[in-house]
Amino acid sequence: MSPFTEFSLMHELQQKGGKIVLLVLDGLGGLPMTPDGKTELESAQKPNLDRLAKEGSTGLSVPIRPGIEPGSGPAHLSLFSYDPVTYEIGRGVLEALGIGFELQANDLAARGNFATVDANGVITDRRAGRISTEECERLTAKLQQTTGDLFPGYQVFVLPVKEHRFAFILRGEGLGGKLTETDPLVTGKKPLPVEDESGTPEGAHTAQMVNRWVEAARAALADEPKANSLNLRGLAKDPGLPRFPEIYGMRAAAIAVYPMYKGVARLVGMEPISFEGERPEHEIAALERVWNDYDFFFIHIKKTDSYGEDGNFDAKVHEIEAVDAVIPRILALQPGAIIVTGDHSTPAKLRSHSWHPVPTLLWSATAMPDQVTTFGERACASGHLGIFHATHLVPLAMAHAGRLVRFGA
Amino acid sequence: MSPFTEFSLMHELQQKGGKIVLLVLDGLGGLPMTPDGKTELESAQKPNLDRLAKEGSTGLSVPIRPGIEPGSGPAHLSLFSYDPVTYEIGRGVLEALGIGFELQANDLAARGNFATVDANGVITDRRAGRISTEECERLTAKLQQTTGDLFPGYQVFVLPVKEHRFAFILRGEGLGGKLTETDPLVTGKKPLPVEDESGTPEGAHTAQMVNRWVEAARAALADEPKANSLNLRGLAKDPGLPRFPEIYGMRAAAIAVYPMYKGVARLVGMEPISFEGERPEHEIAALERVWNDYDFFFIHIKKTDSYGEDGNFDAKVHEIEAVDAVIPRILALQPGAIIVTGDHSTPAKLRSHSWHPVPTLLWSATAMPDQVTTFGERACASGHLGIFHATHLVPLAMAHAGRLVRFGA
Repeated sequence: MSPFTEFSLMHELQQKGGKIVLLVLDGLGGLPMTPDGKTELESAQKPNLDRLAKEGSTGLSVPIRPGIEPGSGPAHLSLFSYDPVTYEIGRGVLEALGIGFELQANDLAARGNFATVDANGVITDRRAGRISTEECERLTAKLQQTTGDLFPGYQVFVLPVKEHRFAFILRGEGLGGKLTETDPLVTGKKPLPVEDESGTPEGAHTAQMVNRWVEAARAALADEPKANSLNLRGLAKDPGLPRFPEIYGMRAAAIAVYPMYKGVARLVGMEPISFEGERPEHEIAALERVWNDYDFFFIHIKKTDSYGEDGNFDAKVHEIEAVDAVIPRILALQPGAIIVTGDHSTPAKLRSHSWHPVPTLLWSATAMPDQVTTFGERACASGHLGIFHATHLVPLAMAHAGRLVRFGA
Repeated sequence: MSPFTEFSLMHELQQKGGKIVLLVLDGLGGLPMTPDGKTELESAQKPNLDRLAKEGSTGLSVPIRPGIEPGSGPAHLSLFSYDPVTYEIGRGVLEALGIGFELQANDLAARGNFATVDANGVITDRRAGRISTEECERLTAKLQQTTGDLFPGYQVFVLPVKEHRFAFILRGEGLGGKLTETDPLVTGKKPLPVEDESGTPEGAHTAQMVNRWVEAARAALADEPKANSLNLRGLAKDPGLPRFPEIYGMRAAAIAVYPMYKGVARLVGMEPISFEGERPEHEIAALERVWNDYDFFFIHIKKTDSYGEDGNFDAKVHEIEAVDAVIPRILALQPGAIIVTGDHSTPAKLRSHSWHPVPTLLWSATAMPDQVTTFGERACASGHLGIFHATHLVPLAMAHAGRLVRFGA
C-alpha cells in the first residue's frame, strides 16, 4: 500500500477523541544470534507488552522502503507519518538537531568533518584520524573565535559533535539555494568548492559566503597536526514541514532524553517536554505530568538502539524489560490507543541499524485481537496489521482513538 | 503498493475471457463482542463460503486508506477499482442516486435536510424533529409545486428520501462551480448562503440560482409547524468517471435491491438489472436470468450492513448464512472467478461502519489454495492475498478469469 499519507484528507477528517501514545523503542527489531536462537525482543520477559499484543493487533512496519536501512531522522519522520522520501531533511539540519541546537527557520546548517590534507591540499584522511571529541571541542572553539564574526550582520556557529564531526550553522537573511558538498568522498583528491544548483541569486550568494567561510576556517586550521582542513556536507535549512498538530488536530508532546529526537519532533511541530532523569520511569513520570495538556504523546527510548549498536544482546533484552515494567502506568492513564514500535531495527548481531521490518503493536478497545499472543518479530509477521509502511500508524491509531470521521456518505 | 489502478494499462491488456462475479456483503467485516469471542463472519455456519476460502486465495482489503472509515459510495467505487480519494463523488449525487433518480451529466444535485428555525431564523433543529417519511413526501410535493417552475428554461426536482432528508436537483445548461453548503452544522446559528469557490462565471451563476431557490422554498415552508426551513449540502454534478466497460472490456451488470448501489454502479457505466424480490435468492435468480448477456456481475447484499448498524450481531450472522446458501447456484453458472468481500466493515459491536480491513476471498481454478480453510477476519489475515487496497480486486479477478494478456514481451 502507498507509503504516502494524504495530509489534506486527514486534516478534513480529524475530530476530537481519545489520547494516543506512540512508544518508540529505538532500534527495537533484532535478529537471533544463532540460526535456532531468539531475537532480543523474543528473549525478553515482558508480560505487559505480551498482554498488549494479545489484546491488540500486530504487524511489521517498514520505515522507509523495503531493504532500506534507515537513519534515525528519516525513521522518526516516517513514524510521525511523513514519508521520508518525500520529506527530506538535510544532514546538516539533522546534525544541528542532534546536538540540541535550536535551529531557526532561516538558518543554514551543515555537517562538518575535520580532515587531513597534504602540502598540495589533497585529502589524505577524510576523518582526520578520528580525532578525540576533546580535540573536536578545542578545534570548534578555535574556529568559533576566528570565524564567528566573519560576516557583518550574520552569525556563525561552529559546534562540536563527536570525534571528527562538527556542526556549522550560518544565521542571517537571504540564505538558501541548493548547495553542493565540499567532500569528494574519496582520499587522493582536493576538496570541492560549494556550488549552487538552484540558479537563484539567494543560492549564488549563499555559496559564495560558505566558500569564504571554508577558506577562512582552513587557514585557521593550517598548523594543526591532523585536523588541518575540513569539509562541509548536507548544507540545508529547516525544510518547513507541514505541522503535525494542524494536520491531525492533536496537540503533540515529545518525551525524549536525547536532543536529536526532541529536534525531529520539533521539526513537525511537536513540543519537547523537559524532565529530570534518563530512565523509562522518568519518561513515564513526565507523561503523567503533562497528560492533560496534550492529545498525542511521542515517547522515545534510546538505549535499545545503543545496546544493539554495541552488539550487547543481553543489555538490549534488559532494556526492553525495563520498558515493559512501565507499561501498566501508561494503561492507567486510559489512552484511546497505544502504539509500541521501533523507528527501525538494530540487531545486536549486526551492531548496526538494519532494514528489517519492525515489530509493531496497536492496542485499543476497538482493535481486532489477532491470533498473535506475544510481542516478537516472527509473531508479528502473522498479525492483523500485516506488513505496512510506518506512515500508516498515526492514521490507524487515530481511527482507534475515535479521532476520524467517515470519508464520504 | 499503489492503491491506484492504471486504467490505460488495463485497457491495453484486456481480452475476452471467463465471467466474473463480485459478491459484496455490505459491511461484512466485524469484531468480536467480547475479547475472546468470535466475529459475525466467524460465528456463521457457512460451509459454501468456507469451501471457496479453502479452494481459493484469501486476504484483507483496505477500502480507502488505513484507518479511514468509508462511506458506502466511496467504498463501492474502490471495489469497482476507482480510488475514491482520486475520484470523488459529491453527497448530492449520492443522494440522488440513492433514490434511483437518473442523474444527467449536467444536473446539479444536493442533499436536502428539512430543519426548524425560530422567529429570528436561527436553527433550533437541523433535522426538523426527524419528521416522518410521509411528512417528507407531503413537503417535497409542496416544494415541487411551488418552486418547480421558478427558473424559465430550467427544471427543478424536489424528491423525498427518508424522514427529514430529500434530494434537490437543478437541470439546465451552464450549471457548475464549487459550491458551499447552507448548513452551519450546529444549532443556534442561521443558515449560510451558498457561495461559489471556483471563481468561474458558471459557479457564480449557479450559486445565485440555488440561493434564489432556497429563499423561495423557505417562504413556502414558513407556516409549517416543524419543517419551517431547510438546508442544502453537497451540491455537485456527476463527476464523469471513466467507464468500467471501456477500461476493462467487460459488459457489467449490477444486481442490487437498494437504489444507492444501483446508482453508484451506473456512475461507472454498469447496467442495473430489474428483478422482483429482495432476498439473496431473488438476486441470484436475476443473475441466472442475465448470465449470458454480461461479463461482470456486481451483486450487492444490503442487510449485513443494516444489521451491523443496528448492533444486531445474530441477525447479521443469519444474513451471512442466507448468502452462503445461494453460493452453489453461483458455482453452477461456472464463472471464471468469484470475489466475495464487503465494501467495508460494520461491526455490530460498534453499530457503525468502521475502518477495519475487510475479509475477502478470490475463488478461481487458477487461484493459489492458501492455508486458510475458513472465511473469517482473522483467518484471512494469513491468506495469500495479504492486506491490499480494494482497487486491486478487479484486475486480480480478471487475471484469474483469463481476461488479461501479458505485459511486455
